[in-house]
Amino acid sequence: MNTSAFFPHITLIGVGLIGGSFMLDLKRLGLVQTVTGIDTNADNLNYALDCGIIDHAYPNICAESIGNADLVLIATPVSVLPDVCRDIKPFLKETACVSDVGSTKQSALDAFRTHLSERLPQCFAAHPIAGSDQSGAKSARCGLFQNSRLIITLHGQEASDGLRRLKSLWQAVGSQIFTMSAEEHDNIFAAVSHLPHLTAFAYVHALFDHPHGKDYLPYAATGFRDFTRIASSHPAVWTDICLANRPALLKLTGDLKEQLSKLEQLLSDGNKTELYRYFEEAAQMRNDWLKNR
Amino acid sequence: MNTSAFFPHITLIGVGLIGGSFMLDLKRLGLVQTVTGIDTNADNLNYALDCGIIDHAYPNICAESIGNADLVLIATPVSVLPDVCRDIKPFLKETACVSDVGSTKQSALDAFRTHLSERLPQCFAAHPIAGSDQSGAKSARCGLFQNSRLIITLHGQEASDGLRRLKSLWQAVGSQIFTMSAEEHDNIFAAVSHLPHLTAFAYVHALFDHPHGKDYLPYAATGFRDFTRIASSHPAVWTDICLANRPALLKLTGDLKEQLSKLEQLLSDGNKTELYRYFEEAAQMRNDWLKNR
Repeated sequence: MNTSAFFPHITLIGVGLIGGSFMLDLKRLGLVQTVTGIDTNADNLNYALDCGIIDHAYPNICAESIGNADLVLIATPVSVLPDVCRDIKPFLKETACVSDVGSTKQSALDAFRTHLSERLPQCFAAHPIAGSDQSGAKSARCGLFQNSRLIITLHGQEASDGLRRLKSLWQAVGSQIFTMSAEEHDNIFAAVSHLPHLTAFAYVHALFDHPHGKDYLPYAATGFRDFTRIASSHPAVWTDICLANRPALLKLTGDLKEQLSKLEQLLSDGNKTELYRYFEEAAQMRNDWLKNR
Repeated sequence: MNTSAFFPHITLIGVGLIGGSFMLDLKRLGLVQTVTGIDTNADNLNYALDCGIIDHAYPNICAESIGNADLVLIATPVSVLPDVCRDIKPFLKETACVSDVGSTKQSALDAFRTHLSERLPQCFAAHPIAGSDQSGAKSARCGLFQNSRLIITLHGQEASDGLRRLKSLWQAVGSQIFTMSAEEHDNIFAAVSHLPHLTAFAYVHALFDHPHGKDYLPYAATGFRDFTRIASSHPAVWTDICLANRPALLKLTGDLKEQLSKLEQLLSDGNKTELYRYFEEAAQMRNDWLKNR
């Protein structure tokens, strides 16, 4: 291994599904020598240490946990990113790079610009498009990023060497790299990811707030299971994402309510022709997406 | 096989996922001697004949296709049920039983009462809780009903012998039998099935009607895939279901829009505490359901 081409020592802040799976793959591929893990949950941290996701474990940011890192990868809920950037700053070695894996990118660039302004060339905002409704180190697994996409949103001052090395790592675990503006990223993911999550949470509440909702549940089947899967997602992670991306998201919740109102009208009118056309278009669009995936 | 305990000759009207899978299991178990299939789609019918789902194929209801049946099982979209009941009536042999598999049951009882009033004791309204986003004879498979529920909604005049035989067949393919009123059934399935379908269709439209929606799609991942799976469901089947159950459904679309408005308020206020609590409750409720399943 020519480790100079990569980051021999990585410090992972937030040892969960995304960061943990990335480290497992990098270790398997021999693309990292040492991983230091930082996590506020001691059980989670011990589990990660025991099963070899990380080599050293620390409960907090300090000289020991940050000072040796060639790459500090921040994989916490997105609202914590600004504080983490501020806290790691005094301990970063001069050549260290910093990156994140958060689902909102305007907020990530803001955090880098505000708290790591002097080292902005070594800060890279990235979002691996992978995940599940599971969370924590226990959910980490090899191969999570196979055939996935990684989006990098540039602030424009990136050092080319660090960026190249980071891209190589993600490509090595199976990601195809895409670059776009943070604003475009946030608009896209509000539509294809954040709105579905918000809607799944809303639907589950509509059901459970219903006077007989709990009695109805035993009759829920596979359609319900799949439609609500993302309502099992990590509440803190999704609180942060939805708040960080609320301008884009609030436009889309309005669109969805309009579509529901349109359907209510078609139902009230008993308009079979238009209702069929509406469902048929949706099925066609979804099937086309599935085919072209 | 003591065939007198069951229905030696079954005529299946609408040879698709549900009826086709049921016949495959009954044949595998030796619980039916002859299956006649009726379907308006010639390709679908030929496929079912070729692969042994049915033994005889007819494009329409007539003396030959109905007259020999001990059980006529109607597995068409629910809006067709009244016409089918009316059309089979002159050809039914005296001892024949009639049943359906539709997802709305007040409409099924109405159809039986209106068009088969003199033979109501031999008419049984049933709903097997199983399915997929696939449709047609090609999607039929053995084992679809393993560990599933079958709901029977009684009109009160059922002949006990016919009802017992029908229940035995469904139990034999893996269904547990539940009995409830048609109104209760329709309220339950509006909540746990019809509303999620309607919402998935609405969300897909919101995305595709968005000026950049089509450009966003390549970034959709597994959350999107599962949340929208039921938007690929058969448009004609779901048009019928939603129209037949619209009173119950219209109450619930209002509930969902209210939940979305509540979330919009929490987002606008930046109310992190309440948003977290909302998501956490939803995740907990969904996880409890999954555990108790």
